[in-house]
Amino acid sequence: MSKPPIINIGLCGLGTVGQGVWKHLSRSRGELESRLGVRLVLHRAAVRDLKKARAVKIPAGRLTTDALAVATDPSVHIVCELIGGTGLAREVTLAALRQGKIVVSANKALLCGHGAEIFSTARRHGGHFLFEASVAGGIPIIKALREGLVANRFKLIYGILNGTCNYILTRMAQEGASYADILADAKRLGYAETDESLDVEGWDAAHKAAILAYLAHGAWVRTGQMIVEGIERITQADLRTAAQLGYGIKLLAVITRDFKENELFVRVHPTLLPRERVLANVNGVFNGISVTGDVVGTTTYIGRGAGQDATASAVISDIADAVTLLTTGKAVALPEEAAALHARGGKRVRLAPLERVRGRHYLRLTVRDRPGVLAQVATVTARHGVSIASVNQTATDRRDAASLILTTHQSDERAIRATIASLAKLKSVLEKPLLLRIGDFAE
Amino acid sequence: MSKPPIINIGLCGLGTVGQGVWKHLSRSRGELESRLGVRLVLHRAAVRDLKKARAVKIPAGRLTTDALAVATDPSVHIVCELIGGTGLAREVTLAALRQGKIVVSANKALLCGHGAEIFSTARRHGGHFLFEASVAGGIPIIKALREGLVANRFKLIYGILNGTCNYILTRMAQEGASYADILADAKRLGYAETDESLDVEGWDAAHKAAILAYLAHGAWVRTGQMIVEGIERITQADLRTAAQLGYGIKLLAVITRDFKENELFVRVHPTLLPRERVLANVNGVFNGISVTGDVVGTTTYIGRGAGQDATASAVISDIADAVTLLTTGKAVALPEEAAALHARGGKRVRLAPLERVRGRHYLRLTVRDRPGVLAQVATVTARHGVSIASVNQTATDRRDAASLILTTHQSDERAIRATIASLAKLKSVLEKPLLLRIGDFAE
Repeated sequence: MSKPPIINIGLCGLGTVGQGVWKHLSRSRGELESRLGVRLVLHRAAVRDLKKARAVKIPAGRLTTDALAVATDPSVHIVCELIGGTGLAREVTLAALRQGKIVVSANKALLCGHGAEIFSTARRHGGHFLFEASVAGGIPIIKALREGLVANRFKLIYGILNGTCNYILTRMAQEGASYADILADAKRLGYAETDESLDVEGWDAAHKAAILAYLAHGAWVRTGQMIVEGIERITQADLRTAAQLGYGIKLLAVITRDFKENELFVRVHPTLLPRERVLANVNGVFNGISVTGDVVGTTTYIGRGAGQDATASAVISDIADAVTLLTTGKAVALPEEAAALHARGGKRVRLAPLERVRGRHYLRLTVRDRPGVLAQVATVTARHGVSIASVNQTATDRRDAASLILTTHQSDERAIRATIASLAKLKSVLEKPLLLRIGDFAE
Repeated sequence: MSKPPIINIGLCGLGTVGQGVWKHLSRSRGELESRLGVRLVLHRAAVRDLKKARAVKIPAGRLTTDALAVATDPSVHIVCELIGGTGLAREVTLAALRQGKIVVSANKALLCGHGAEIFSTARRHGGHFLFEASVAGGIPIIKALREGLVANRFKLIYGILNGTCNYILTRMAQEGASYADILADAKRLGYAETDESLDVEGWDAAHKAAILAYLAHGAWVRTGQMIVEGIERITQADLRTAAQLGYGIKLLAVITRDFKENELFVRVHPTLLPRERVLANVNGVFNGISVTGDVVGTTTYIGRGAGQDATASAVISDIADAVTLLTTGKAVALPEEAAALHARGGKRVRLAPLERVRGRHYLRLTVRDRPGVLAQVATVTARHGVSIASVNQTATDRRDAASLILTTHQSDERAIRATIASLAKLKSVLEKPLLLRIGDFAE
């Protein structure tokens, strides 16, 4: 038997994820090699600081500060871009793809901001871009959408895609503590970044939603084209009222496709999810994704959405797929075959105007605690054609104010936004109303 | 551009699943063709009766009664074996593999009974055997274990793999009706076979457990080497007591691997699953699988475990993988590379003696309702070193008898079996004790 071919791997970036990949790949290399029929060599790694102490031991001769040199090294077959951000990471990615290499990446921001450029560069030069780790950490959701569910068109995909938000909401629900307190604790424990805005405002989940929407529907949706709302204003009153009504509150990314009108809706918002749905019981840092296909029905995927090890698991599965690509010379229905993907559903999909998103809503109003306020509020909602399903009134911290919590029947985004604008103008409404969505999706 | 190559598909068997594959493949063919870069032709289909009325319309010229002729037709590239059973299905499979063809199958019984023969035939002749549909219907669990989680070794895999049992147990828990009543209704509604024994006695789940164990650990475990217990003796008393203790009851397949001792345990039994576990809330005909890898942690997969459409979704994903195999000429770390798979975990795994399975147990005894019985029972358990964690006594239908329900602390299978044998000999114990397992697995 001939010697197995050598596959050289270059790592760009040796932060948390990079070190995880190095550690687990070193440990499982023998098994992977025998499964894949190659020799895997961790050839070079690019770091910012050669002298920094690292948990994994890497021979000094393998380290460089020049990430571009690793990406364009003719002996490197697979480039793992684990730098993060969209500056050097983009340069490294494009440089490697231009040489026809395979790039493995966990970088959702890069993919969302420059996906079209990345895939067209890959196509032009025969390179490939693999990104299992970019969404939902160790859950193999990219492979499921791309390969496992290839027979399906997806009318509904929704999921908990941000572990930080889910951790905060879970602890708030379980401990009865305030958003601010739990956020501070999450930062102390390393579950939230120093600047938490990307996570808690919904942008991170929106990036991941864009990637799932691309995989399922072949169109890149920009975050500016989505409804994106965060969890910052959620209070104990919301969690308690939701629980009374039979719901948990989760930050969800929701991707719906109307095949009749051929329209796509993408949105990220805190959602009242009926307690009996599986994802309502996915807690802590876990992610969960529910995928409804027209053939398979609903399948659900749950696992750790981030962290060194879960992300490394996904990166290594991409490395294994990259090896197969290298040894066979052909891709397995990869999503850069955008033209083909666009054909899912027969024709190119249109992004639907956001005003047309339909659903049931939850409104929390801080109102003057005096007679007649409910009548005023009900008059406004009726004027906009929004029909009220339930009303709860609870006390607030302020002596003169009460929380008035409404749920509505189905209405569209235009009507609910107009309602909120009108409500905000009432003298008896003391704060900007809080809008949450009710996630009684038809699976 | 050159014309896309033609891939001819032969279907052997046009029952429920076969018709589902024909229907969905006909509908999605255009999209699949553009993704895969080939033309897909439903070339021939073998049936038992040419004249039988079918929901899908198939030109008479494409039908034959000779399944072997389809399997060995030189123009057929992919053979879908959807006959079922282990007679003609095995002949068809082996004949196609001997010609180096790719066989796609949903046949778990065939794979369990003849897996080693099938994979060795495939290896010898350059054929391939794909079987995503054989476990958990439309959930892409085979692909997840084989590719998505390739970086992992699996210390624990457990799951609800039989939809009929889950349907019966769910309705019993929700409606308070007896096993016999729900089973009769399930038969009437088509959720249970006329002869239900394969499902309710656990054999179907055991077949699927064998396949998962092979994928994860590279060893074929025969059902005779597993603990296999069914759901037939579960009563409302069991469900109620379990609920009081914080558990739901599910028929689970459990595959554990001790990497230190390099031992494998495979078992199928009704299990008290803590209510907060995700799988405790997977209800009705749904299947769910929880996979704990040493890198990724625990990931969970949920979906329809059977039915025409879910199974067709899985078969079609295998057809897509088969096309990639045909156009690239090389397998993607397929499990027939058994030698390599065996290496997962470093060395060939040993099947552990069943007596060594450890866990907590639930025992229901029907006892004479008189003083001193509990003391007798406790003396017997103590003699076998089995320590009691809780005791519940409830009424039975019989005036002179009570149900005594014990849960135990950790003990091994040998001790609990010896305990049951001794208890059964007590005069005050009126029926064979019922043993259930408590599923407080360390994930």
